[in-house]
Amino acid sequence: MPHIDLGNDQPGIRSLFYFRPETAEPLCALVEVLLRGPSTLERWERELIATHVSGLNECRYCTNTHGAYACAQAPAEVKLDLVRTENIAVPGRVGGDILAAPISDKLRALIAVAEAVQQTGQAVTLELVEAARAQGATDLEVHDTVLIAAAFCMFNRYVDGLATVAPEDPANYLQRAGLFVQNGYLPTAEAARAHQAAHI
Amino acid sequence: MPHIDLGNDQPGIRSLFYFRPETAEPLCALVEVLLRGPSTLERWERELIATHVSGLNECRYCTNTHGAYACAQAPAEVKLDLVRTENIAVPGRVGGDILAAPISDKLRALIAVAEAVQQTGQAVTLELVEAARAQGATDLEVHDTVLIAAAFCMFNRYVDGLATVAPEDPANYLQRAGLFVQNGYLPTAEAARAHQAAHI
Repeated sequence: MPHIDLGNDQPGIRSLFYFRPETAEPLCALVEVLLRGPSTLERWERELIATHVSGLNECRYCTNTHGAYACAQAPAEVKLDLVRTENIAVPGRVGGDILAAPISDKLRALIAVAEAVQQTGQAVTLELVEAARAQGATDLEVHDTVLIAAAFCMFNRYVDGLATVAPEDPANYLQRAGLFVQNGYLPTAEAARAHQAAHI
Repeated sequence: MPHIDLGNDQPGIRSLFYFRPETAEPLCALVEVLLRGPSTLERWERELIATHVSGLNECRYCTNTHGAYACAQAPAEVKLDLVRTENIAVPGRVGGDILAAPISDKLRALIAVAEAVQQTGQAVTLELVEAARAQGATDLEVHDTVLIAAAFCMFNRYVDGLATVAPEDPANYLQRAGLFVQNGYLPTAEAARAHQAAHI
């Protein structure tokens, strides 16, 4: 049960967006540009970074939500299968699974940068950045990786700090992924505004 | 020296905003509504929460920037004096100073919630939230405190994860505070766009 009365029965961060649409708007705009905007990193690769950081932060809702988004957008040959009952029980599990997935050496090096960010900004060394660069990562890709990892250190704390509800059934996450792939993050902010307008 | 070539010589997060105006926009919009938008928490109180979390994360640039913003907006009787050479050397110092300041019991209880968020979302207990509520904190104030603390866990990691430049001289932070109090966070995103347009 959430620590405060959110006035709606949405799950996870959606319940917070409905409670406070004023902050939902820039938060949704941020992930839309960062995870779906023009980039030389594929959308599923960026979702994978978000999923991995959320797993390390043991945030069940974010790990499974973004795990489902990564799976729904990854090419068939990558064979991602991240949203499973055992992950739901132990969110941190997803992290290990991601590193076992058939991803590029560049993405693997960027995920190492993201892992450092998850600990603390100071943990990101020039060596980690140069290792990513040696695998072909650009400055913009390093930048976006650091910001994605940092942003999920925010989202995970926001979602769990207010003890929002995280569904246990994987179907909840997988069902939403299809609609998400089509429409992205912005409709949630619009739905939050509409909910607010209907309840004033 | 920053880990990547940012193409400008701005300090701290400003150098990242100039490098990537597309993400600067939602990030500036977020802090504008969260730290300066309508709220029953004073602007200086919200800046104090941001400063304290940044101190715990040992982010020199954010600690001194938001420490300066808190000082510039606090009433005279609070006598905040957060931007000092010793803080510059040891950012974590500011945290202790804040708890010694003559702030309300409500703000003190909200800062305890923010301290938990800085560790992890799971560290925020119902007891901490109820202690804040017992001092008169509303659900919206608890929500905003959690989101401010979570957001600075992002900003601090973003700023230090890319090793941006943090000036040592307190004057750098204090000088900027006056202009900031008048105009807020949005002009930085506009300046970042203008810089991008001039360099394409």
